[in-house]
Amino acid sequence: MIRVDVAIVGAGPVGLFAVFACGQLGLRCAVLDALPDPGGQLTALYPEKPIYDIPGRPTVRAGELVADLVQQAAAYDPVYWLGQRAMALAEDSDGTFRITGSAGETILARAVIIAAGVGAFGPNRPPLPGIEAYENRAVFYHVAQLERFRGRKLVIAGGGDSAVDWALSLTGVAAEVTVVHRRDDFRAHPASVAQMKADPRIRLLTPYQLAGLVGDGVTLSAIEVERIGGARERLEADCLLALFGLTGDLSSLASWGFDLDRKTIPVEPVTCATSRKGIYAIGDVAAYPGKLKLILTGFAEAANAAREAYARVHPGKALHVEHSTSRGVPGFQALERAG
Amino acid sequence: MIRVDVAIVGAGPVGLFAVFACGQLGLRCAVLDALPDPGGQLTALYPEKPIYDIPGRPTVRAGELVADLVQQAAAYDPVYWLGQRAMALAEDSDGTFRITGSAGETILARAVIIAAGVGAFGPNRPPLPGIEAYENRAVFYHVAQLERFRGRKLVIAGGGDSAVDWALSLTGVAAEVTVVHRRDDFRAHPASVAQMKADPRIRLLTPYQLAGLVGDGVTLSAIEVERIGGARERLEADCLLALFGLTGDLSSLASWGFDLDRKTIPVEPVTCATSRKGIYAIGDVAAYPGKLKLILTGFAEAANAAREAYARVHPGKALHVEHSTSRGVPGFQALERAG
Repeated sequence: MIRVDVAIVGAGPVGLFAVFACGQLGLRCAVLDALPDPGGQLTALYPEKPIYDIPGRPTVRAGELVADLVQQAAAYDPVYWLGQRAMALAEDSDGTFRITGSAGETILARAVIIAAGVGAFGPNRPPLPGIEAYENRAVFYHVAQLERFRGRKLVIAGGGDSAVDWALSLTGVAAEVTVVHRRDDFRAHPASVAQMKADPRIRLLTPYQLAGLVGDGVTLSAIEVERIGGARERLEADCLLALFGLTGDLSSLASWGFDLDRKTIPVEPVTCATSRKGIYAIGDVAAYPGKLKLILTGFAEAANAAREAYARVHPGKALHVEHSTSRGVPGFQALERAG
Repeated sequence: MIRVDVAIVGAGPVGLFAVFACGQLGLRCAVLDALPDPGGQLTALYPEKPIYDIPGRPTVRAGELVADLVQQAAAYDPVYWLGQRAMALAEDSDGTFRITGSAGETILARAVIIAAGVGAFGPNRPPLPGIEAYENRAVFYHVAQLERFRGRKLVIAGGGDSAVDWALSLTGVAAEVTVVHRRDDFRAHPASVAQMKADPRIRLLTPYQLAGLVGDGVTLSAIEVERIGGARERLEADCLLALFGLTGDLSSLASWGFDLDRKTIPVEPVTCATSRKGIYAIGDVAAYPGKLKLILTGFAEAANAAREAYARVHPGKALHVEHSTSRGVPGFQALERAG
């Protein structure tokens, strides 16, 4: 259990800058993220891509921007809780929030800033009944260790680069490799697709889709597939690698007591206040009329939410916000006077 | 006369980023500023100061940030009109704005973004009747060329670093140097103050203030000063260097037809629309409840105002805003479809 001033849900670029913005006001933060590393989508999806619209950075690679934001936030010594989802929220009678992470730990905080982007980032699950029971045993959404697939009768589902590249890499490891894709065309590097099609060890089923899992709930014995517009077939298989990309999931915030649309949290413009007192939302997850979903918009929202969080953490204390040139970091103490 | 999509008043950091934000939407900009160089206060007042609160720039010198913003904006080939104030605004019957600069030139634009900060930046004038007539002949607010002061009977007014440093530098140039300051203490480097006080060529009058100018409207023959709480005296002098710092002046915008407080322009939050259609205000000059006067806030406002300007320039065309990683710069063409 840790106690901080502000809990920040989401360690993407906007969540990281919120640490800094709170720190400038003397507020200590803890940051949770479902991903194992800070940076959100920038780290998980496109660390090498150049970004052009960060003010004052004519060109910066996404991963480089994340590193700079981590360094900037480090001046205020945040607590990082990575690789775990923010699950339950409770509020004590004195207004302290308790956030429980998926690893079972608890953060106590006086204010909460949600910078969750598109939500906790995870794989797209195919809609197959009972699939959860097989996950991490017979069903996988990414390849952490090649050895997990040694000697197995593997079905790879998907039509992107991941599906094609792993089909090529796992032929030498798995006993059998079947690729199931709902189109005849693959959205992958043409040379890799050609190599896959030419490899006699890879069985291609297109246009096919997954239809069901057959097994005892622990061990998989077959996978049902369906020719598009056609009949169902059964493939003898004991392992499924489903590579349908990543998606965001906000469902764990549904019980937190603020209004939540399917993909966004409505907030007051400027203050970024959600419908629940003491909880603010910023960045792509925060919605108001005219909202631009740009990283730089989230940065400005972070500064606004930090100011609101300050008022919640220090009720009655006026805050004198100054430009950083007047005060510097680290070691800055918010200039305060009794309100 | 030049014709652009958007006229931006103010080439400070926020005005510079507005050029980029408009450029990303395919809008070409002209930028006016009263100062001779881009960067506003960052260039004029503290180019060497480190700034800490620009997102993703843990530390950046103000001048360096300006250079980076100029480079970022350069991708969209803005027209710079520097060293001239934006004076009159007129609107043609087709909604085209005409902005006349103090050098007499005209910019035609479909939308106007005011990023004027504290206003056109100029020296604080002492309130002496008739002072304008002597300016740049016998009255100066900064030292552009030492030779202007050679052999003259000089009065330096002020108590900061500039007054002290120029008193020391000009003793070898001017025939006489008198320093007039309304307090006995100087707000300057102690070693320089001590050196000034020890210099027999410098006459110190404290606590004194300026009271009047004596001359024929072209040539100055004397300067009247007044001991604080005391009597008026006349100093034989033909040159005044008044160093009372710089201040902003929004007065030239007073007739532009939008609401204007003494130091700010009220705008709608999010859209940054002023009370006059087609004119937007961003950065420190723009006011709304809860506004934070931070550079990063102005950056986000610039993106919002650019989107509104786009709607004004291209009525009926929908704008599809994407993250820069999807499109890159330069050469980006806004993705448009008929609205």
